[in-house]
Amino acid sequence: MAQTSNILVMQSGGVTPVMNRSLYGVAREAAAHKALGSVYGAVHGLEGLVAERLVDLGACSKTALARVARTPGGALGSTRRKLKPDDIGAIIDALKRHGIRYCFIIGGNDSAETGHTLAREARFAGYELSVMLVPKTIDNDLVLTDHCPGFGSAARFVALATMGAGRDAEAMGEASPITIIEVMGRDAGWLAASSALAKREERDAPHFIGVPEVPIDETLFLDRMEEAYGRFGFAVAVVAENARGPGGVLGGEEEPWFVDDFGHRYYDGPARHLAAQAARRLKVRVRHEKPGTIQRSLVACISRTDADEAEMVGRAAVRHALDGHSDEMVTIERTSGARYASTTGLAPLEAVAGQVKTLPDSFLNGATGLATDAFLDYLRPLVGSPLPRFGRLL
Amino acid sequence: MAQTSNILVMQSGGVTPVMNRSLYGVAREAAAHKALGSVYGAVHGLEGLVAERLVDLGACSKTALARVARTPGGALGSTRRKLKPDDIGAIIDALKRHGIRYCFIIGGNDSAETGHTLAREARFAGYELSVMLVPKTIDNDLVLTDHCPGFGSAARFVALATMGAGRDAEAMGEASPITIIEVMGRDAGWLAASSALAKREERDAPHFIGVPEVPIDETLFLDRMEEAYGRFGFAVAVVAENARGPGGVLGGEEEPWFVDDFGHRYYDGPARHLAAQAARRLKVRVRHEKPGTIQRSLVACISRTDADEAEMVGRAAVRHALDGHSDEMVTIERTSGARYASTTGLAPLEAVAGQVKTLPDSFLNGATGLATDAFLDYLRPLVGSPLPRFGRLL
Repeated sequence: MAQTSNILVMQSGGVTPVMNRSLYGVAREAAAHKALGSVYGAVHGLEGLVAERLVDLGACSKTALARVARTPGGALGSTRRKLKPDDIGAIIDALKRHGIRYCFIIGGNDSAETGHTLAREARFAGYELSVMLVPKTIDNDLVLTDHCPGFGSAARFVALATMGAGRDAEAMGEASPITIIEVMGRDAGWLAASSALAKREERDAPHFIGVPEVPIDETLFLDRMEEAYGRFGFAVAVVAENARGPGGVLGGEEEPWFVDDFGHRYYDGPARHLAAQAARRLKVRVRHEKPGTIQRSLVACISRTDADEAEMVGRAAVRHALDGHSDEMVTIERTSGARYASTTGLAPLEAVAGQVKTLPDSFLNGATGLATDAFLDYLRPLVGSPLPRFGRLL
Repeated sequence: MAQTSNILVMQSGGVTPVMNRSLYGVAREAAAHKALGSVYGAVHGLEGLVAERLVDLGACSKTALARVARTPGGALGSTRRKLKPDDIGAIIDALKRHGIRYCFIIGGNDSAETGHTLAREARFAGYELSVMLVPKTIDNDLVLTDHCPGFGSAARFVALATMGAGRDAEAMGEASPITIIEVMGRDAGWLAASSALAKREERDAPHFIGVPEVPIDETLFLDRMEEAYGRFGFAVAVVAENARGPGGVLGGEEEPWFVDDFGHRYYDGPARHLAAQAARRLKVRVRHEKPGTIQRSLVACISRTDADEAEMVGRAAVRHALDGHSDEMVTIERTSGARYASTTGLAPLEAVAGQVKTLPDSFLNGATGLATDAFLDYLRPLVGSPLPRFGRLL
């Protein structure tokens, strides 16, 4: 390997509030090692790499980079493009031309596949290249890691939003007593389940949680809503955007809300449908809220633990790559002890790619439609500083 | 008037993140005056008053009350019930039985009407009663006050949400470049316009703001989205839930999404319709987000200025009532000077009831569909500590 090697960093997939903190970690750690030269960023990930649209992060002052580190989103631009066989030649050429021997992808499941393919193809091409995945996803669905950077902050949003919306519905009473909140989570219900952190007393929201792992039984959902409304005068459900019924899409016979000119059909998530059912059953106004990208970008809900770990995994990726590792993802390992602490580990990309870590049975209570204490113990340290305790007069 | 009089406090209308801080202000100020005895709260406002469901706040410790003060929602329960002529007799009786001579309503437009009627009817009945309105509304649409408690915190949410969602759309690029955010605001666009605080550079979100005061020209909206998308690779619009087209409801021919058994028709807000139009024009994925009650209950976005003023107006209402005032609303007046400061004033309820303060022309730029610098100067101090500055690499 050359005396000084340059490095490439990319951001990929859905963005998070702390993804740029990982970018900062990679760049700052690289600057601390004499074996490493320039740090290039690929603009919009693979798209920029294939088109050789690279930016030199060395042109960015330490102060400016620190500001980027505190900015939600993906400062290099993200992408959902898949690596195609035709791309490999152009990519290897681009890497060669820029003297790049280390590639860091800040991403999730899909990026694990991209990284693994890139590492393998570089090997076939005889081009010495280390490829490391810096984990990132608010969905928290990567295997072989205790949790994923981005999740803690989004979970903090979901928990605080549920606390607030719960008190709102409780106060409004008859005027607007029922709220359905739709949260993200493509294949797993980690975020929806995180709303359980809002529940300190039985009366507190949420009163039902819908996750992709368990088909929503509409009768059970309505029973839970009716029961909570009857007992407490209000009810709140939190459902994952991809939660389904036993037969597939909820209200499956309904029309897509929009069909574009390519024929792509856009369906509503489950909240709108469930809200209509609840309004029909309970004969009251039912709200359905969809924070959407706000839940993964609101700077006011960033978990400090999450942000610190996002930098930690970025820095660890650089150190491991310099130690000769490649084709691996940095993992987060929870250390034992009364007080929460974490360290990093490694997992082969081949074992991560295409896998989804769903909520284990021990974290879900099918009977109540809620999360278990074991899950809350797992979750609590990840959301950062303790959530506020609210008061009641009634 | 008796040596010691008791007081009644109620919460009414849509709740806010700092409405309980006003309640705290009333209760703590009352405790400081020997002429005042017990502080009763009416459960769910008028509903509780008519049914004589009152709680004695004296049973609540100072610590517990301070916790309530930091809790979003309305700890006494709110209501949308209107005062009916038939209620008056029961109300006067209840007030007499509890020795109540002072009534404080924490509410908005509708509460001004309630308060004015109550003051007048008590006068007719020969019952000595002071009625004061403690202003409250995230909509910021009360006349004769510089602004309304609750607005600053909700505006802080809207601005931070727009900043975050903007960076999200910018990073996602082709994968998901357009976002429409629907925010609250029944008759006025103050909250939607507050998203303009997110815009530090031309590139920043929002690129279009839709308010109830100006019918949305769909062609203009689509042109603005297309222009921003063409120039910056992403576009974000923020629209008020009640924004309308020149002919009324946007996509007016569309079916309600739900009709309940009473025949009430529930329509979607404008975001879903506008998102469909934008997707059709731009041939890309368009998100539409609806934070709903989260925007008026997220504790992480409470403006300290707003919270402090919410307490200030509650305390002022008690002092003014003791000075002999009645049938008036406490107002917030902005004092002159380089640094923001505010004090309280008074306005007759008769002049407040049924009035709506819409955005003045000087705060809206019809040509750009955005807010003016004059509005931003007005708004900036109300949202509390300065919003973070984000960084960029591209």
